[in-house]
Amino acid sequence: MKLTQAGELAMLTGAGRKEFIFRLDPSAELQTHQGVLRHSDLIGVPWGSGVESHLGKRFFILEPTLRDLLLHIRRQSQIVFPKDIGYILLRLSVVEGMRVIEAGTGSGAMTTALAWAVGKEGRVFSYDRRADMIDLARRNLVRVGLEGRVDFRQRDIEHGFEDSDVDSLFLDVPNPHDYLKQVRRALRSGGAFGAILPTTNQVSALLRALGDHDFGLLQVCEISLRFYKRVPDRLRPEDRMVAHTGYLVFGRPILDVAVDGPVEGGDEDGAG
Amino acid sequence: MKLTQAGELAMLTGAGRKEFIFRLDPSAELQTHQGVLRHSDLIGVPWGSGVESHLGKRFFILEPTLRDLLLHIRRQSQIVFPKDIGYILLRLSVVEGMRVIEAGTGSGAMTTALAWAVGKEGRVFSYDRRADMIDLARRNLVRVGLEGRVDFRQRDIEHGFEDSDVDSLFLDVPNPHDYLKQVRRALRSGGAFGAILPTTNQVSALLRALGDHDFGLLQVCEISLRFYKRVPDRLRPEDRMVAHTGYLVFGRPILDVAVDGPVEGGDEDGAG
Amino acid sequence: MKLTQAGELAMLTGAGRKEFIFRLDPSAELQTHQGVLRHSDLIGVPWGSGVESHLGKRFFILEPTLRDLLLHIRRQSQIVFPKDIGYILLRLSVVEGMRVIEAGTGSGAMTTALAWAVGKEGRVFSYDRRADMIDLARRNLVRVGLEGRVDFRQRDIEHGFEDSDVDSLFLDVPNPHDYLKQVRRALRSGGAFGAILPTTNQVSALLRALGDHDFGLLQVCEISLRFYKRVPDRLRPEDRMVAHTGYLVFGRPILDVAVDGPVEGGDEDGAG
Amino acid sequence: MKLTQAGELAMLTGAGRKEFIFRLDPSAELQTHQGVLRHSDLIGVPWGSGVESHLGKRFFILEPTLRDLLLHIRRQSQIVFPKDIGYILLRLSVVEGMRVIEAGTGSGAMTTALAWAVGKEGRVFSYDRRADMIDLARRNLVRVGLEGRVDFRQRDIEHGFEDSDVDSLFLDVPNPHDYLKQVRRALRSGGAFGAILPTTNQVSALLRALGDHDFGLLQVCEISLRFYKRVPDRLRPEDRMVAHTGYLVFGRPILDVAVDGPVEGGDEDGAG
Repeated sequence: MKLTQAGELAMLTGAGRKEFIFRLDPSAELQTHQGVLRHSDLIGVPWGSGVESHLGKRFFILEPTLRDLLLHIRRQSQIVFPKDIGYILLRLSVVEGMRVIEAGTGSGAMTTALAWAVGKEGRVFSYDRRADMIDLARRNLVRVGLEGRVDFRQRDIEHGFEDSDVDSLFLDVPNPHDYLKQVRRALRSGGAFGAILPTTNQVSALLRALGDHDFGLLQVCEISLRFYKRVPDRLRPEDRMVAHTGYLVFGRPILDVAVDGPVEGGDEDGAG
Repeated sequence: MKLTQAGELAMLTGAGRKEFIFRLDPSAELQTHQGVLRHSDLIGVPWGSGVESHLGKRFFILEPTLRDLLLHIRRQSQIVFPKDIGYILLRLSVVEGMRVIEAGTGSGAMTTALAWAVGKEGRVFSYDRRADMIDLARRNLVRVGLEGRVDFRQRDIEHGFEDSDVDSLFLDVPNPHDYLKQVRRALRSGGAFGAILPTTNQVSALLRALGDHDFGLLQVCEISLRFYKRVPDRLRPEDRMVAHTGYLVFGRPILDVAVDGPVEGGDEDGAG
Repeated sequence: MKLTQAGELAMLTGAGRKEFIFRLDPSAELQTHQGVLRHSDLIGVPWGSGVESHLGKRFFILEPTLRDLLLHIRRQSQIVFPKDIGYILLRLSVVEGMRVIEAGTGSGAMTTALAWAVGKEGRVFSYDRRADMIDLARRNLVRVGLEGRVDFRQRDIEHGFEDSDVDSLFLDVPNPHDYLKQVRRALRSGGAFGAILPTTNQVSALLRALGDHDFGLLQVCEISLRFYKRVPDRLRPEDRMVAHTGYLVFGRPILDVAVDGPVEGGDEDGAG
Repeated sequence: MKLTQAGELAMLTGAGRKEFIFRLDPSAELQTHQGVLRHSDLIGVPWGSGVESHLGKRFFILEPTLRDLLLHIRRQSQIVFPKDIGYILLRLSVVEGMRVIEAGTGSGAMTTALAWAVGKEGRVFSYDRRADMIDLARRNLVRVGLEGRVDFRQRDIEHGFEDSDVDSLFLDVPNPHDYLKQVRRALRSGGAFGAILPTTNQVSALLRALGDHDFGLLQVCEISLRFYKRVPDRLRPEDRMVAHTGYLVFGRPILDVAVDGPVEGGDEDGAG
């Protein structure tokens, strides 16, 4: 049985209630719409325990998952969503020890996921032109204790990346098609490139530019996530869902392009 | 510039051609429908290089991503797909150093992803009743060099798991609702539980059982992945897609259930 | 050029404004959040004209389409949506001169569509147990001028339908599986049966019952409709969408069931 | 009980078998992979009856629905699919007595649906440049007995439509944006316009042109149809589905455009 400890990240949740994510601090207390909880009462109990506010409202204390952390990022910009992040990490093959570039930093959701995945030995280089976004992202990373894995670079990537020979590179900027020369210089051959884009016009522009800059194995896709109501005898999807976050574009830098260009053979139907 | 080396995993791909994933071995050669390539010619070249078969057909040599590895698993059973695996890893918060249980092993796609994500210090305990499936999965893991992170257990989980206090636990079996008592004993409090199920009837049965066994934060969802043709001036989705792999069910074991039961508040629309 | 006339149905719409559907009446006026319009100013102008409220806000006057009428039904219950209705009409082959049964009446959206499609010579028999729903639906039909094509029956279909030998029959009730004996008596052999159901449990129950009552060519499907923002240079789907209205179930009553039962061969990929 | 008669359209179907649609002719016989059936044995039996081939294989005889007819169109081109046609008919408000233009004719699936919906008093004007497509479409219409409702026009719509003041107009051509001047002349004010387009680039081009030609209430959408396996105790979607047929674009010609342009307020979530 693992007990909660001071200094750890915790998530408090309850029936029909807002979730709270915070770091356990013996001298702090948590204000909710349904009463106050003193952290000292939340420390030293088994994870998963039920606890009560001073109004007698019941909550549960849990370790936040990566998905919980991502959804609770403090944001001043659209974030990349968990449904997309999970797939991007697989496509970019992000794993412990890797060196990864991302731009722009934004509110830091993708930064958080990359820092999580590269582990203690890995490194994330996160670029943004705006100092305020980097500040926000850094605060979000500090909050979850992952800031030590990230180098923030306040810089316009028009002028190139400072880092090079990285294993993978992810762009979440409005005009990725303008920066592919810079990407090729920073991303090692054999690496993996990805981007997320809200509009079809941007996807067309990026596909054109990828072809011009010797990227192969291009793929474009979109991911939908539909939740269901949790009633066993009346199982059915929720009434509404997110219709769109962005199109995902992937490619691999290659050294020498055949006339007929490499293309990805199989899709994911298992016949691949 | 990183060069290919003997002993490394490589992927060979070309225009409209089947992909090949294999380990570079100076004495081996690769047979394709479009000619033969000697590994010795593929070793010591930069990743991303173009190479030619003895028939003059051009291929490119790349490091396979995790997604590539998963799609090339040798299989005797339905595998969990990358679109689902990426999201499952986020929801189960699988990360370096974790200890994870899965059942059943099947062909080993999920095992591969878990072994990848737990890193060198982590541990995967993979259960299956069938010796032949464990043999197949082990061969698949050996092929990608991750077998050292997995303990295979040939055992009917009806009799309980041998391992306990794991951080997360994933079930890909036809009747997960029958094993929740066993799951609660093996999964530490505060851990994360997930399952994939092809039919709605199974989802209803599992939801009922999760409620009976003090799981909270239940969620049911399904993920769709739609690919687009890569023609910038004629951007459009592919003609056909995978319509269904499985429903994903997630929950957290809690210690003490309130009458009104904890439920997940926000979905993933960013309003969470 | 066709001019608006007193007594016709009209729709008034404007930039970012609520739509209004009403019958043109020389003595009436329309109150909107953006000013008042006298019907007399809306009569005798070409359809499609711009008109202004007394506050100078511009609107356009258009004939409502069937879809507009359906979305503006006054409702006390969930209605069947246009995306589903269009497909149901095709599957039930509803056309001028047909005789059709539906139950329950509800707010009358499906009734409106059926009355529209059967034309002046056709007939809709609409059943509901509740007098208040029939009153509401009748008012909705009167509003669009189609009430003359419908016979409302306040009756529990448990006791059977009063009408028989109809060409097609549609059920929008919670337990259609309980009424298939009654359906078989009312629906002529060679006719078409359809139902809409919100939950998977209901679909399973109906499929079982259809098999027990000699229905063939069973099909279950769901329809999704995703809207796009109308910005040519930033084309992208809307942020949110309806995730679920209902599952559609179709079947044909047959006279004599083979051991191996008739099944629908092709789906709609054009390879049918 | 309605009996089959010589001269009627019939559909023959069986377990796991191809469907056949043909006109009953006492002197004809039907060849199938599972034996021969003489039409004379199929005439004068109740609709829905089981019948057997000379090899003892069982089939059922049913009246084809509009959806069945559309899926069995003989085609030399991509057809518009039933899932799209049903919604288009609602959006264009096609009903008995209407006059409708479509271009291009193609194989005649949309022509068939329009001819069905306009009824005996309505009229469809179907344009195509290619004589061979018109011949094919006419044969398809003759086959289902609806050719009397259609005027085929072999003509390049670049030169304008011969018919005018029609109630609605549907374009299924690669470059609808080039013909909106012609559309405005043919479509009466207050009418309804629709188009289907496979690519996002075409949608962007059409949206731009619609704005330039005083169309209001623009909407762009796409419809997905997912089938389920019909096993009550193992209810789940089919493995694969159609991922894309086309984007649907709708608009209404208006007479006078406000600076801020009319837009469609509500989508179809019932809050409209």
